[in-house]
Amino acid sequence: MPSGRTRVRRLPELAVYERDAIYAILDEALVCHLGFVDEGRPYVIPTLHARVGDELLIHGSAAGRAMRVLGSGAPVCVTVTLLDGVVLARSVYESGVNYRSVVVLGNARAIEEPAEKLRALEAFTEGIIPGHWVLARKPNEQEVKATVVLAIPLEECSAKVSEGPPDDSDGPDADLPIWAGAIPLEMVARDPVPDPALKHDLSPPLYATGYRRSHRRA
Amino acid sequence: MPSGRTRVRRLPELAVYERDAIYAILDEALVCHLGFVDEGRPYVIPTLHARVGDELLIHGSAAGRAMRVLGSGAPVCVTVTLLDGVVLARSVYESGVNYRSVVVLGNARAIEEPAEKLRALEAFTEGIIPGHWVLARKPNEQEVKATVVLAIPLEECSAKVSEGPPDDSDGPDADLPIWAGAIPLEMVARDPVPDPALKHDLSPPLYATGYRRSHRRA
Repeated sequence: MPSGRTRVRRLPELAVYERDAIYAILDEALVCHLGFVDEGRPYVIPTLHARVGDELLIHGSAAGRAMRVLGSGAPVCVTVTLLDGVVLARSVYESGVNYRSVVVLGNARAIEEPAEKLRALEAFTEGIIPGHWVLARKPNEQEVKATVVLAIPLEECSAKVSEGPPDDSDGPDADLPIWAGAIPLEMVARDPVPDPALKHDLSPPLYATGYRRSHRRA
Repeated sequence: MPSGRTRVRRLPELAVYERDAIYAILDEALVCHLGFVDEGRPYVIPTLHARVGDELLIHGSAAGRAMRVLGSGAPVCVTVTLLDGVVLARSVYESGVNYRSVVVLGNARAIEEPAEKLRALEAFTEGIIPGHWVLARKPNEQEVKATVVLAIPLEECSAKVSEGPPDDSDGPDADLPIWAGAIPLEMVARDPVPDPALKHDLSPPLYATGYRRSHRRA
């Protein structure tokens, strides 16, 4: 799966190329960062993504720059990062963060056939808010038209995983009387907050009260 | 502050151009996504950042591609995203996420003068783990040499903020008997975990037990 372009060159000991591990990171993350080139300059925008099989789906407005550039097949880089902790090493140099990240390189394919597009939007919604597609009002024809759905093949991709305590416990700094360890960081979901404009006496659905990302791994 | 390139074109009602609001987002976020172009293709890598005055500092290995490309003054896009919640609208189309994001465009300047570089590394460390610079072993000459420190001027930048309940409470969907609201998401820090290899009986410092990002706003 790693190409010459996705093979991890910096800190190769952190590299992960197993498909299951890469997919688990993509599935846990809600937001990705989409990189593209327009008139020779780089742009990075945050957007939602969902993995469906061996493709990554993203969507956006047909009126936006990203979808215009990428819908035409321009090269794309999608990067997903889960922040797992702050690492306090004995030295400043070895301090940093624990994280899991994935970089996907490729070219997007616009999904244009209406039935396929609607299925992609359903799969996308299931990836973001599992359960919501069934309950919510489905997109109408106009909404489907206004949305560009892109599929990026998960061919050229790699992950980097940094975890655990700092790396300076067996070097010359090991004896320093400086506390070292990690501060775990976790993204948690709080209780759902109803829209104050709700006109019906409804309880939040189970997929809202039980919403979580961290154990979603397929 | 917004240029033709950073003026928010999609969903302009979410745009924020006030410097204080933009800086608060940059300061709360620990990780940014760095976009650059190499041989005509886009690359996006996650990295730590710290704002110091009207500049954004990033650092990396002198041996890495990103620092090589950006240290030479190539155009850069730095994007920071804080995920605040999942929005469940009555319709799939209006559902999505609440977030605060900043996009910075510009060209980086490599900080090369050793004393300025050391001051930049101190400010950088203060931004990531306030308090750690004083306690930890400071970078030695070799470590300073192996690190590229880049400063990106915060001139061309803009923010986008999406918050609160979904937007479909005054449209044709308002009467639908579908629960709508938001699920707040929050990044929380857990209790520090000591390195099992610690050779001294030390308690974690206060800046570790009290670590938090969300109220760091300057």
